[in-house]
Amino acid sequence: MTEFAKRGKNRIKRLPKRGHYDRETIYRILDEALICHVGFVEKGQPHVIPINFARVEDSIVLHGARASRLLKHIEEGHPVCVEVTIVDGLVLARSVFNHSVNYRSVVLFGKGRPVEDEQEKLLALKAITEHLIPDRWQGVRPPNRKELNATGVVSIKIDEASAKVRMGPPVDDQDDYALPVWAGVLPLREQTLSPIRDDLLSEDIPLPEYIAQYSR
Amino acid sequence: MTEFAKRGKNRIKRLPKRGHYDRETIYRILDEALICHVGFVEKGQPHVIPINFARVEDSIVLHGARASRLLKHIEEGHPVCVEVTIVDGLVLARSVFNHSVNYRSVVLFGKGRPVEDEQEKLLALKAITEHLIPDRWQGVRPPNRKELNATGVVSIKIDEASAKVRMGPPVDDQDDYALPVWAGVLPLREQTLSPIRDDLLSEDIPLPEYIAQYSR
Repeated sequence: MTEFAKRGKNRIKRLPKRGHYDRETIYRILDEALICHVGFVEKGQPHVIPINFARVEDSIVLHGARASRLLKHIEEGHPVCVEVTIVDGLVLARSVFNHSVNYRSVVLFGKGRPVEDEQEKLLALKAITEHLIPDRWQGVRPPNRKELNATGVVSIKIDEASAKVRMGPPVDDQDDYALPVWAGVLPLREQTLSPIRDDLLSEDIPLPEYIAQYSR
Repeated sequence: MTEFAKRGKNRIKRLPKRGHYDRETIYRILDEALICHVGFVEKGQPHVIPINFARVEDSIVLHGARASRLLKHIEEGHPVCVEVTIVDGLVLARSVFNHSVNYRSVVLFGKGRPVEDEQEKLLALKAITEHLIPDRWQGVRPPNRKELNATGVVSIKIDEASAKVRMGPPVDDQDDYALPVWAGVLPLREQTLSPIRDDLLSEDIPLPEYIAQYSR
């Protein structure tokens, strides 16, 4: 199945023409977004926490200290909502009302489980590391026994998901096109600046190509 | 009062040394973040929605279509959680375990109310527009009666809030400093690319300075 059903919580009601339900669109956005925002409920109170993540097939994996409240909550199988958003630009219209933002966002719903199997846990940690920066996993020291024991990993199966995308120029009211107002799009992008070497790094260790070439 | 009490839901339990409770730190992050992530609960289910916002004194203002589910929910006074995160860089350590992200995030809790007073509504819309791009409000067509009626605005008083900040180089285990692994920080920043003029824009309208100079 390459499309999520749109009958559930994931149905886009506001500006439905911006909605997408196909896995390709949704997974591309998930894979590009740097961090995600996890929503959960505790005693009726909503909480949102930003966290690193990765998508592994049809699931989202998260890691953290084993004792963390968020991980414990997810391990218990409570419903969670995971949201990511990439902002691509400011949409500057001729009227205040038609101002907007170009963006790509995903909202998904699911329930989590603890990842205890060591092989699966390592694969999840690798996925999270490589989600941040591809090719990093090879060549750094892998987790040792003590670190693995201290690290909790949860996997959230994506039950429902949708993407919302706005792109392109401003759309103004017909009468407003005559106004002497600059209109257009101011594109924004996550930019990489020059890498900062650790002061304690030996001078004979060169910058790897995958860091020099990094871009999102 | 310049500090939020840290006894509530806002208390940072995980890595407490990264926690901040002073308004100055919290408000600076809120004012810099482009969008926020609003968490709310509907029938026990957590939802997270990305949305434009602004801070107005000790409140967060949001706007949207008057009929939107999110606005209606907030207007009804249900508890909400608002989160923003600015990612400043990837922290590349010598071990997988010590990899991290430099970031500044805020999580706040409060309850909303509808903004019905026209003057207050206009001020909120101005704040949201200027949060996206300062100096834009002057010179674009202001909202007309019909647009104001179609737009809902809510104000969320910040009851509890905290910031979490990680900065600086990787912190590795003592034994790992001898490893031949490049370590340091890869800084990330929201970059502005060249503005894209609307195809329908008259050629004699120049790019305003506040757009040409825009940066976050």
